[in-house]
Amino acid sequence: MDMHSPTEILQTVRKDQVLLVRLNNPKARNALSEEMIELITSVLEETAQSKDIRAVILAASGPAFCAGHDLKGLTSHRQDDDQGHNYFSYLLTLCSDMMQRIVELPQPVIAAVEGIASAAGCQLVASCDLAVASHSSRFCTPGVNIGVFCSTPMVALSRNLSRKHAMEMLTLGEMFSAEDAHRFGLINRVVPDGQAEAEALNLAQIIADKSHVALKIGKKAFYEQLEKPQREAYRYVVEVMAENMMHQHAEEGINAFIEKRSPCWDK
Amino acid sequence: MDMHSPTEILQTVRKDQVLLVRLNNPKARNALSEEMIELITSVLEETAQSKDIRAVILAASGPAFCAGHDLKGLTSHRQDDDQGHNYFSYLLTLCSDMMQRIVELPQPVIAAVEGIASAAGCQLVASCDLAVASHSSRFCTPGVNIGVFCSTPMVALSRNLSRKHAMEMLTLGEMFSAEDAHRFGLINRVVPDGQAEAEALNLAQIIADKSHVALKIGKKAFYEQLEKPQREAYRYVVEVMAENMMHQHAEEGINAFIEKRSPCWDK
Amino acid sequence: MDMHSPTEILQTVRKDQVLLVRLNNPKARNALSEEMIELITSVLEETAQSKDIRAVILAASGPAFCAGHDLKGLTSHRQDDDQGHNYFSYLLTLCSDMMQRIVELPQPVIAAVEGIASAAGCQLVASCDLAVASHSSRFCTPGVNIGVFCSTPMVALSRNLSRKHAMEMLTLGEMFSAEDAHRFGLINRVVPDGQAEAEALNLAQIIADKSHVALKIGKKAFYEQLEKPQREAYRYVVEVMAENMMHQHAEEGINAFIEKRSPCWDK
Repeated sequence: MDMHSPTEILQTVRKDQVLLVRLNNPKARNALSEEMIELITSVLEETAQSKDIRAVILAASGPAFCAGHDLKGLTSHRQDDDQGHNYFSYLLTLCSDMMQRIVELPQPVIAAVEGIASAAGCQLVASCDLAVASHSSRFCTPGVNIGVFCSTPMVALSRNLSRKHAMEMLTLGEMFSAEDAHRFGLINRVVPDGQAEAEALNLAQIIADKSHVALKIGKKAFYEQLEKPQREAYRYVVEVMAENMMHQHAEEGINAFIEKRSPCWDK
Repeated sequence: MDMHSPTEILQTVRKDQVLLVRLNNPKARNALSEEMIELITSVLEETAQSKDIRAVILAASGPAFCAGHDLKGLTSHRQDDDQGHNYFSYLLTLCSDMMQRIVELPQPVIAAVEGIASAAGCQLVASCDLAVASHSSRFCTPGVNIGVFCSTPMVALSRNLSRKHAMEMLTLGEMFSAEDAHRFGLINRVVPDGQAEAEALNLAQIIADKSHVALKIGKKAFYEQLEKPQREAYRYVVEVMAENMMHQHAEEGINAFIEKRSPCWDK
Repeated sequence: MDMHSPTEILQTVRKDQVLLVRLNNPKARNALSEEMIELITSVLEETAQSKDIRAVILAASGPAFCAGHDLKGLTSHRQDDDQGHNYFSYLLTLCSDMMQRIVELPQPVIAAVEGIASAAGCQLVASCDLAVASHSSRFCTPGVNIGVFCSTPMVALSRNLSRKHAMEMLTLGEMFSAEDAHRFGLINRVVPDGQAEAEALNLAQIIADKSHVALKIGKKAFYEQLEKPQREAYRYVVEVMAENMMHQHAEEGINAFIEKRSPCWDK
């Protein structure tokens, strides 16, 4: 995966073991058009198979992180025989699958937000495992302003935020500051403007130095166990962790720890 | 729905498209007596059918927002043949149904808290979609002090707060400040004393200007999807949102956004 | 249960109606060895049957609260015929059962953290009903550093923290401050160094003065109802609370409240 041409609407840049994925359609405020969703999906599919990529950063060019769906593109399908119903279902499924793919990607994904993350753009942030945002970045789920509640974004949002905070964003449809998003638990860190990508890269490199075997096992188990009753969750993760213990990474990692040296893992 | 007589224990006041519901039995600290629960239920039933009301505010007269159940009323049923068991089940079901009705009301409901919200009064705040409280307001679930754990209040409380915070309130039975409640995520905003109703009205008017169609669809979907596994939640909301897209509010709302004008929705 | 000899690795001290359980193997950083887990389990079994103990404090001697599993003990089982798989499953089940026993103990359990709570030691804090920590205490789930994701700890952790915060701890594997843990909702209070046990005792004594009948009923119902859909949770707790109302503690507690006197409960 090489650096793509700067004229493409989705760029990927490898920085050692970190893949930086950058939405690069600033004049469309990086909207999640059908094309953009398919490009992101394709990068995620490829990344899931990669043996070298240890962490992914989702960033964006221009003043908006991501404006959500491409409303002009959606509206054009009102001309369809069914007034667009099939297309809307199709696109929302495509988009939800892409969000779910972030959750299911073996590697941790870190959002690096500068500017506005709106609607499905806000969902993108909520869907990542970690998120860093610049001081001036803002977050909103403004569907109530245009007659369409942000129902798909709220799946990710409401699994990150408390009910009152999620409903505050969803019913008011207003802009919320990075400070609010930090207080709500939507983002992990607030950094000075222009520093989100650098801080995300810093976190990604910390993660890249860890056991990718443990991270892959653990990320999958994290989201699986969250949806189980607690006793069942324990039964499930006991088997996950016992299996993890059998792996060469665990044997070497624990030996290195006992011997007070750095672990040397297979790549 | 006109303004009711100030001698009634539940007052309703229409302010444009906002319905202000005010507990008005200050000498009983606005306790949730059987009569009070039935009056609130009745107002909620009527409001659910209203085509004009866009948001509801729950406020209260006097120094206490709501003291929870009417303990004298409950205790009098210890004289019943079954020592009150049937009555206790009956009243707790009546009260839980009323709380659930807030969650299921098509319109957003905002608590405006001045003074103490205690036990089922605290549950009332937790059951609203949004909550505003004055600086001196206080919150508690003091059942452990009188031998009855706040078990019905905790259903709403524990779906708003983290486990440690909910257990802190429930096991200590002490008063918590508005600042604590804000930190816990139980309330959205803290305002100067005497300003809770004004700030709730401010939020309600913001909401009243939004698409009530989107809000109705979205509020229902919000609480439904929260209880589904994530993949299933996505399948559910994709259909909800595709349906929402077919509505005249969505068509007009998106067109207005693209044309950079205000949407003109059917009333 | 008397004070045990200071040479034992698990000490129990009775302070009136509070049981202080102290991990006392500082040279092993209070690791959860098989022996330690069995000792804690045994104390919890005995405590569950006690008619006198009203609250439990989990504290520790030395600079580390608890370092998690005993890695040398685990590693020695790589010599087993199955390279340790059965033993790992056995020990992780033993440990998970002990954590679950804290959740299911009738009495509230309060963690009093000084120093580092790491991996399963951090899980121990997350598994308690309440937690107090000193200013310099630190929290981490460092499995990714040794090739074994903290999969069992995350069951408790992810039920206390928001997703982004839990993943921040789990994927970075770094030390988090008491202030971070407080912000994340993992601990209830931060106190000056050396004061965690005193503050936990303060909270335990407040709890010990409450109705132990209500606390036992309520704690069980708290964790049960959390795993039910909201409407079902209400049906369940209505019956729990109606039953609670029939108890002598409720009758006396409510009468005392109405008569403005202190309740006099059976012991």
